[in-house]
Amino acid sequence: MRDIGWPSAIPVVDRTSIVPIYQQIYEDLREAILTGTLPEATRLPPERVLADRLGVNRSTVVHAYRELVSAGLIEQRVGSGSRVARSATHAPRTADVPWWVTLPPWQVGSYPQVLGELAATFHGERIAFVQGVPPVQPSPLGELAASFARVAGDPDYVLSYGDSEGHAPLREAIAARMRRRGCAIDARDVLVLTGSTQGISLVAQSLAEPGDEIIVEAPTYPGALQIFQIAGLRAIPVAVDEGGMRVDHVEAILRTRRPRFIYTMPSLHNPTGAMMNADRRERLVKLAERARVPIVEDDPYGEFALAAPPPLVSHSPNYVLYLSSFSKTIAPSLRLGWLTAPRTIYERLLLRKQSYDMATSLYVQAGVCDYLGRDYDEHVTRLRDEVTRRRVIARAAIAEHWPKAMRVSETAGGFYLWVTAPRETRARALLDAAERVGATFLFGEAFYAASGGDHNFRLAITPVSREGLVEGIARIGRAMTALASR
Amino acid sequence: MRDIGWPSAIPVVDRTSIVPIYQQIYEDLREAILTGTLPEATRLPPERVLADRLGVNRSTVVHAYRELVSAGLIEQRVGSGSRVARSATHAPRTADVPWWVTLPPWQVGSYPQVLGELAATFHGERIAFVQGVPPVQPSPLGELAASFARVAGDPDYVLSYGDSEGHAPLREAIAARMRRRGCAIDARDVLVLTGSTQGISLVAQSLAEPGDEIIVEAPTYPGALQIFQIAGLRAIPVAVDEGGMRVDHVEAILRTRRPRFIYTMPSLHNPTGAMMNADRRERLVKLAERARVPIVEDDPYGEFALAAPPPLVSHSPNYVLYLSSFSKTIAPSLRLGWLTAPRTIYERLLLRKQSYDMATSLYVQAGVCDYLGRDYDEHVTRLRDEVTRRRVIARAAIAEHWPKAMRVSETAGGFYLWVTAPRETRARALLDAAERVGATFLFGEAFYAASGGDHNFRLAITPVSREGLVEGIARIGRAMTALASR
Repeated sequence: MRDIGWPSAIPVVDRTSIVPIYQQIYEDLREAILTGTLPEATRLPPERVLADRLGVNRSTVVHAYRELVSAGLIEQRVGSGSRVARSATHAPRTADVPWWVTLPPWQVGSYPQVLGELAATFHGERIAFVQGVPPVQPSPLGELAASFARVAGDPDYVLSYGDSEGHAPLREAIAARMRRRGCAIDARDVLVLTGSTQGISLVAQSLAEPGDEIIVEAPTYPGALQIFQIAGLRAIPVAVDEGGMRVDHVEAILRTRRPRFIYTMPSLHNPTGAMMNADRRERLVKLAERARVPIVEDDPYGEFALAAPPPLVSHSPNYVLYLSSFSKTIAPSLRLGWLTAPRTIYERLLLRKQSYDMATSLYVQAGVCDYLGRDYDEHVTRLRDEVTRRRVIARAAIAEHWPKAMRVSETAGGFYLWVTAPRETRARALLDAAERVGATFLFGEAFYAASGGDHNFRLAITPVSREGLVEGIARIGRAMTALASR
Repeated sequence: MRDIGWPSAIPVVDRTSIVPIYQQIYEDLREAILTGTLPEATRLPPERVLADRLGVNRSTVVHAYRELVSAGLIEQRVGSGSRVARSATHAPRTADVPWWVTLPPWQVGSYPQVLGELAATFHGERIAFVQGVPPVQPSPLGELAASFARVAGDPDYVLSYGDSEGHAPLREAIAARMRRRGCAIDARDVLVLTGSTQGISLVAQSLAEPGDEIIVEAPTYPGALQIFQIAGLRAIPVAVDEGGMRVDHVEAILRTRRPRFIYTMPSLHNPTGAMMNADRRERLVKLAERARVPIVEDDPYGEFALAAPPPLVSHSPNYVLYLSSFSKTIAPSLRLGWLTAPRTIYERLLLRKQSYDMATSLYVQAGVCDYLGRDYDEHVTRLRDEVTRRRVIARAAIAEHWPKAMRVSETAGGFYLWVTAPRETRARALLDAAERVGATFLFGEAFYAASGGDHNFRLAITPVSREGLVEGIARIGRAMTALASR
């Protein structure tokens, strides 16, 4: 720790100038910092000392220092005074570097592009068990194309923006479907989104501020972790077991901490497939109400969980924000989902939604709304059967091709298998080996906010054909053998 | 200013507890603040004093105070110590109020719902000159529906998410069109968005932090002002005249301030229709490069400005982020636009785009990409002619029905007429009068970051029929007469 190099770096004050004195002090110190005369971590003199030295009011120096703090050039800590900020000399906002060097700090940490990876179509020879997309067969495309053809010629649907809350008949259809699942939801509680991922982002930015804590599951949806990280939130992980999120852990955390919200996927949890049991659901909602902490219930796979207990939002519409999507039940390319929120915060979410994209495509909303009244229920039933069938196929292939030491989560259904490899097998090494023999998947670490997942990986069983499913599992089995023999 | 009520509010430390001492201090002070025992603005004892009193290390108290700062319960200022925060007692994050009372602060100020208003279809008897949508005739719907029908059956387009950067052939088509306008843009510089409004939000959140200053035009697009406000940015307004943004004013501002970016609409400026002349374009870019401040060029009406000088981005791809949209040239309901950005910051924008919605609808992108190769150019030509024709019709109707004292901006074209009423006529009062006789428009204040616009209003000439255009102008003329006679 170096102290300021007195008197060389002391500001010079010109009392005849029209520039306010605090600004002269600010400018001089700023220049000294940016030019390196005052290197990072240099301690600045206490305000009173500098004020005496310059013969100015102490408040003038306080003002100048405050401006330096705002500019990110110095840091102040009670008890240890003012120091040149660590980043200040690295990225000076000055005329000798291009503007992109001096952008605000940006930490994307270890989940830099997982949303991109989950979205990007895999072009290659490998069998890719990566994306949570519905299977290509059974296809909704015939009926869906007919629905779009019915709305594509209507200027009311195509040549206007539409209400930013969403298309009224679609909001009503969504609310009606939720009411059938026991949720006291009205059409005006529904905000139509471009997918439930957008809802995670709206919640992260509207209900919390950078630096705030939230509770997440461990493991959880990596896309949510990317969003929380970009929003600057600090995730407190809570373990998931076969009964869902460990609500007793949530209780312990709420005793001493006050997270902004609890993010959970109670039905067909991604990636484990766990189903939160009815007891825990009730207890979690009661806990949230008592601690006055809202729950964000992410339910994109709800339609695939026939035997699931009612959603959390059915217990407490005022303490649960509910998110879901048509990406898993119709088509991800539509980018269509929704949230429900209590009236008290609906407006806040709506205004931010407007700032993201004004409104969700009315053309897409009108097309899907038409489809909902026709083929949707039958399609979801067919899809559910196909996913069940695939789980059977996958388990049979795993039993045939994988070492017994690989444990696969036993779950009620869903798009994913969550695999735990034995201690000696690291999932990253296994992924490398699998990619060499033509298969790929997501390794477990991406699903954890903190540590964890080294020995886990997720297999999405829907983005490949049935044949590809068997062949890919066989390839991964060969990779396991190859890895074990090394 | 009250000092802490010693000794009544002094924390009690239990050395036998497993709870860390700093946390005990934190919890006690927290309770005292939330219950009002320590009212807002109460001064807490200096760390050293409290440490001595409790017989603990000073660092323990520093730690506790820091936690209180994080929780928003106290504020620390160098030189004036620690005080109970003003908001702490107003909205305690405690068990006696519902959670939505204690949300982070949220200032939407005076532009609360303008994006919603610009999006929402107007259902009513009034002739609404509000939205910037293309006219219903000439219609793109026949050919557009055919394009969508061609892609709707392809699972590669509908049953996958697609690259979050955008559909590769669409990015290439966009880049090729921009190259024809003199911009050195490659497909990989293009990020496909759900409209150019999304680009404004990405830029506002990725290139600046809350509290940062930016430069905007006055007047400017009210949707952008709403976004900047939600992002917590402070807009410095710069006047617009018939030659576009007053670049000399920008120069003066850059002498003493360091905004994060300059937001401008150089071609067919919304709402004035101004066209920034070639000299100013060149000078603005040079200024930006010298000051190391990037320009955000919003160009949704670029296709309607045949005689416009080349876009700003053609002068300096590294200092200009370019935004545009298919909302004005094809259909707003598609929610499809794009930005181009230098490689240095592309990734930062992409990651945030992923957090907003993973990717733009691939189905919509594929449909529009098909349409671009077919009817698009012809449609834009027809649309341009229609807009020109409407401007003639509107001006004729204004000459017939409005008092001469109403001044209408003389511009090269575009969707809007920007009207300046005489001093004695307030635009809000005129709007009230117009709504009584069955016409509505946007009054001027919404277009100004600070003051201004009291005597201005914007008339969108495209969202109504040609007949509605004449009839609506006649109605507004009657409102003007009624208002003047009061």
